[in-house]
Amino acid sequence: MTKKYQVVGIGNAMVDVLTHMDEDFLLAEGIEKGIMQLIDRQRAVDLYGKVGPAIEMSGGSAANTIAGIAHLGGACAYVGKVRDDQLGAIFAHDLRAQGADYETRFAPADAEQETGRCIVIVTPDGERSMNTYLGVTEHLHPSDIDESQMAQAEWIFLEGYRFDGPDSHAAFAKAIAACKQAGGKVSITLSDPFCIDRHRAAFARMLREDVDLLFCNRAEMTSMYQTDDLDAALDLAAEEVDIIACTDSEKGAYIVAGGQRWHAPAVPTRIVDATGAGDLFAGAFLWGLTHGYDPQTSGRMGCVAASEVISHLGARVEKDLKELFVASALI
Amino acid sequence: MTKKYQVVGIGNAMVDVLTHMDEDFLLAEGIEKGIMQLIDRQRAVDLYGKVGPAIEMSGGSAANTIAGIAHLGGACAYVGKVRDDQLGAIFAHDLRAQGADYETRFAPADAEQETGRCIVIVTPDGERSMNTYLGVTEHLHPSDIDESQMAQAEWIFLEGYRFDGPDSHAAFAKAIAACKQAGGKVSITLSDPFCIDRHRAAFARMLREDVDLLFCNRAEMTSMYQTDDLDAALDLAAEEVDIIACTDSEKGAYIVAGGQRWHAPAVPTRIVDATGAGDLFAGAFLWGLTHGYDPQTSGRMGCVAASEVISHLGARVEKDLKELFVASALI
Repeated sequence: MTKKYQVVGIGNAMVDVLTHMDEDFLLAEGIEKGIMQLIDRQRAVDLYGKVGPAIEMSGGSAANTIAGIAHLGGACAYVGKVRDDQLGAIFAHDLRAQGADYETRFAPADAEQETGRCIVIVTPDGERSMNTYLGVTEHLHPSDIDESQMAQAEWIFLEGYRFDGPDSHAAFAKAIAACKQAGGKVSITLSDPFCIDRHRAAFARMLREDVDLLFCNRAEMTSMYQTDDLDAALDLAAEEVDIIACTDSEKGAYIVAGGQRWHAPAVPTRIVDATGAGDLFAGAFLWGLTHGYDPQTSGRMGCVAASEVISHLGARVEKDLKELFVASALI
Repeated sequence: MTKKYQVVGIGNAMVDVLTHMDEDFLLAEGIEKGIMQLIDRQRAVDLYGKVGPAIEMSGGSAANTIAGIAHLGGACAYVGKVRDDQLGAIFAHDLRAQGADYETRFAPADAEQETGRCIVIVTPDGERSMNTYLGVTEHLHPSDIDESQMAQAEWIFLEGYRFDGPDSHAAFAKAIAACKQAGGKVSITLSDPFCIDRHRAAFARMLREDVDLLFCNRAEMTSMYQTDDLDAALDLAAEEVDIIACTDSEKGAYIVAGGQRWHAPAVPTRIVDATGAGDLFAGAFLWGLTHGYDPQTSGRMGCVAASEVISHLGARVEKDLKELFVASALI
């Protein structure tokens, strides 16, 4: 029986606040370049008061991935928590307008917590330094997981970042069980090396027991398997996980599946804003895989999508990805 | 004595919701292309539910002008009403982060009204069709005008659109009186031909009695003086107003002052989004005029700024305008 969804993503529902600042600002504010750092509400207010004019766009790592799949016409849904506020409405609108199912799971009214936001500071080199106030999205609870929805997914896609919350491990476990029981498969992104440091044991167990498809980049792969040797890490991962898609910045991506390894070359572009590269890689890869394309071709689709999203501001696709796939002779 | 502000703007405080849709969508929704139409809250909700993914950016016609002056380093302030909500915070942040003074005038808590927003539908030709839900910004009241602030302005800049509110005529009259009494001057933009149709008599009186500098485009100028002949309209306007800056799309702008008329050529560019062209023309013109440049040079600055803002999405400047002025040998 055909399932309703090719992919259901679970992650941090966020609105990105994108602003251009120089390297000196990062230094003065003690912001680590190129990574995601968690900040509390007061820091979010203080930092926002210091950055320049900004634009607001829906973000969230897994949400960007799901938006990419929806853009390609894939049947997909998203689970993540917002509050009933203006930023929550923006997040929900953009995902639904792209064609993804999203049943808003509102947090209970609470004066302290709002819809999550990420202050993305883009430096002149196009690198992005993310400052994330999680807000209500931190409180994803097992009760927010609809088992029948997970059973309707060919794949679920889990965002590593979402592990940064008290009830989320249990929520993920519930989603995995419901998906697997119905014959579905599990994919995960490790999100970033610091996220791995925070949740290494939980990730290791999931990779051993639950995960069928692993998304990561070079730094995450070597951090996860605690070796500097990417090849060795890929071999270790391949013992646990069926398919591995490991991105490597301007070198492209390595795909491992069925005892084979392929290299998918990066598609050169001028980097305007690196936000969303990994997210859109995963989106295009999952779209390919669920539409009859092999892992190698899906990896090349991922590289095309990543190249598109870093060529402009924001982590959602602008150009027609299918046209780009055609231009690259992938479909 | 030097005044604190070169320009204080008064207008509709709005956040723009920018989305790309095709011409068919405009037809299906009965949206008139290229103009601003007022919509109520319910229509704003309905229309937002129908448009594609969007990005949010601070907007508001006079606010765009003031942001442009602030970007150039001019001393300026803005008056316009938001609500104490997330969109209001975004609007206030972006203006202050650009360097303009903005004392938030919050509307009283009211379940029905929120911070104003404009759903800007950008068609493939770069033209923008604006659907404005005014929200609380409609209720600008004389009590929101600080006479001492108006007395500290070399120029005040009035947004024609802001006439669409019950107490705003009185608010404008109060601002004009306070500014003039302290030796300041009054500029106005007529905003659009439909705005003129709504407020022709009030505009005519202000042009006769109060206005020292008139901003408009060809359609507004000919509508205001009810003639198809732009030259005739400019002559009529010149009898009433000291300086006239009339834009004419790809032809550039006509500047009339001291019995002379100049043509400022448009600066060719690829139009991505026409939003803000007139606003930034006015901002650069006012900056030039208040920094010792003659009306002709100020008009050329206006054309450079308009060209910059239509070359990308959104109505706030991205590139360094002073560098562009240098490149055009204007400063």
